[in-house]
Amino acid sequence: MSYLIDGLQYSNWSEEVFRQIRAGGVDAVHVTLVYHENFRETVANIERWNRWFESWPELIFQGFGAEDIAKAHATGRTAIFFGAQNPSCIEDDIGLVEVLHRLGLRFMQLTYNNQSLLATGCYEAHDTGLTRMGREVVAEMNRVGMVVDMSHSGERSTLAAVEHSSRPIAITHANPAAWHPARRNKSDVVIGALAQTGGMLGFSLYPHHLKGGSDCTVEDFCTMIARTAERFGTHFLGIGTDLCLNQPDSVVEWMRTGRWTKTVDYGEGSKDAPGFPAMPGWFHDNRDFGNIARGLRAAGFTAPEVDGIMGGNWARFCAASFGAADRQDKAKRAAE
Amino acid sequence: MSYLIDGLQYSNWSEEVFRQIRAGGVDAVHVTLVYHENFRETVANIERWNRWFESWPELIFQGFGAEDIAKAHATGRTAIFFGAQNPSCIEDDIGLVEVLHRLGLRFMQLTYNNQSLLATGCYEAHDTGLTRMGREVVAEMNRVGMVVDMSHSGERSTLAAVEHSSRPIAITHANPAAWHPARRNKSDVVIGALAQTGGMLGFSLYPHHLKGGSDCTVEDFCTMIARTAERFGTHFLGIGTDLCLNQPDSVVEWMRTGRWTKTVDYGEGSKDAPGFPAMPGWFHDNRDFGNIARGLRAAGFTAPEVDGIMGGNWARFCAASFGAADRQDKAKRAAE
Repeated sequence: MSYLIDGLQYSNWSEEVFRQIRAGGVDAVHVTLVYHENFRETVANIERWNRWFESWPELIFQGFGAEDIAKAHATGRTAIFFGAQNPSCIEDDIGLVEVLHRLGLRFMQLTYNNQSLLATGCYEAHDTGLTRMGREVVAEMNRVGMVVDMSHSGERSTLAAVEHSSRPIAITHANPAAWHPARRNKSDVVIGALAQTGGMLGFSLYPHHLKGGSDCTVEDFCTMIARTAERFGTHFLGIGTDLCLNQPDSVVEWMRTGRWTKTVDYGEGSKDAPGFPAMPGWFHDNRDFGNIARGLRAAGFTAPEVDGIMGGNWARFCAASFGAADRQDKAKRAAE
Repeated sequence: MSYLIDGLQYSNWSEEVFRQIRAGGVDAVHVTLVYHENFRETVANIERWNRWFESWPELIFQGFGAEDIAKAHATGRTAIFFGAQNPSCIEDDIGLVEVLHRLGLRFMQLTYNNQSLLATGCYEAHDTGLTRMGREVVAEMNRVGMVVDMSHSGERSTLAAVEHSSRPIAITHANPAAWHPARRNKSDVVIGALAQTGGMLGFSLYPHHLKGGSDCTVEDFCTMIARTAERFGTHFLGIGTDLCLNQPDSVVEWMRTGRWTKTVDYGEGSKDAPGFPAMPGWFHDNRDFGNIARGLRAAGFTAPEVDGIMGGNWARFCAASFGAADRQDKAKRAAE
């Protein structure tokens, strides 16, 4: 049994994209439900997904537990797991963690580039780690079974989350900064902390996270993964493509600026290149995962290692992460 | 196996009340989550319940499916099923039906005394039946598995709901108007329609619904049930005590007037008797269900019939009602 799982996508969803996901044989996807939405707006986004689940039950269904990955595989469909890139969805209310978990939220970033009520984002000048509320919310996420995702967080906050969380955390979409020093890529200290605590790192295909950008070759990408594995092991590695298909400029602007500024923020882009860069030629959409799997084999990984990176490691992590703490706690301790 | 199930309570919840429920051996209770709350306020009420579930897991847990009644019975706890007395919780948004069902809402009244966006309440001068949105929402409730409750609705609206709903509906708390002609009690036409479609009628102990009010005897109450059974059968009969313990006047005022008036509305009370009337001496709280069961035996019901009225009929109804339509539809048709 080998699974194909993507640790992050946020496309402009449509029947066409869902059919691409099925054509690619993807068993499960963590999809972004929230950039800057408050609670009520988040619920409206869930309502949109409910319409899609009702419209295309032969292609997709909502995932709540890791068993839904196996169910998806067995029935030739894709399990969709909700995640938030920003804790805006819980507003100032810790009780919303359990409510949103009940509605299926399985990942939540503590920050999205900026300071939040919980922690510091990777674009801030000063990173003060977890706030008072941040520590409380991490404990509540641990209790109900919601993964702490630090993809867009600052280094100190990320290490504080690893330390404070009683369960392993994830960086669903980023690459090693040692390979390509983008502000969103992660230090070896952070990657080592993930490896040692049963966490997960999903390698990103967003061109700003790639050495050479859109021109990065699959050989370069897979060699980077091999170097990471040599140093830290393969057990905690997965893919988080950060795939964004067909989004209009208005949504890209919402992702970058939400309601927090009246000026233009280019995020990882720039004034000269404000749009989304072209994806590398070997990964256009969900039908291209085979290119990565073949590249990993060519880079020297064994077949079981490739299966782990392409989905097996995410499946194991989800099984340890999505249940309530009284049933599935101490996964982190077991991994230490 | 016999269950004890109450079709409606809305007490001021506390450890004391939960311990009374356990002392009474109640396996499941439909509790009121909403009087006039909008969606966000409803979620805040769910958060309060989540705190109670977390605080007293040895006494109560949230019920989502009928199997939770058996689980409660087997583990010596009480399953709490959420209901709304008013569709205010879905605001003007049909998508919130599925969202609230996911959060555990298993009953929703289409109206609470007044006209709603969906139907007409029993205190309005003109009852126009289901609205355009009302027909859509009933179909959506049928699809996801949320019981249509018409306890506070007008006669025409109630009969329209029975007719339009593809699944059996409930009147969780009311008595026959032929016995005591309160505005909230139900005509024989309505009771007959419930009996013929696999619906449910929960007999109420709220004194304004009782002949003789607080002085009504258990013999009178059980004889009324026996007369109803003789005419319509016992298969669709249950208890819905309408029990309200320890609520402060501020909550009683919220129940009656919400935000819809600036003047005082006494509901079933009056200017001379604005408060809640005293409960009859044979039913103070959840420890007194045995008095009803004994009264039913004395009124001539067989032991299996008493088991059905005290909980078995509700359990069967819940099993046919709480699942999605594609799994458990056509219960109504089967009952016809």
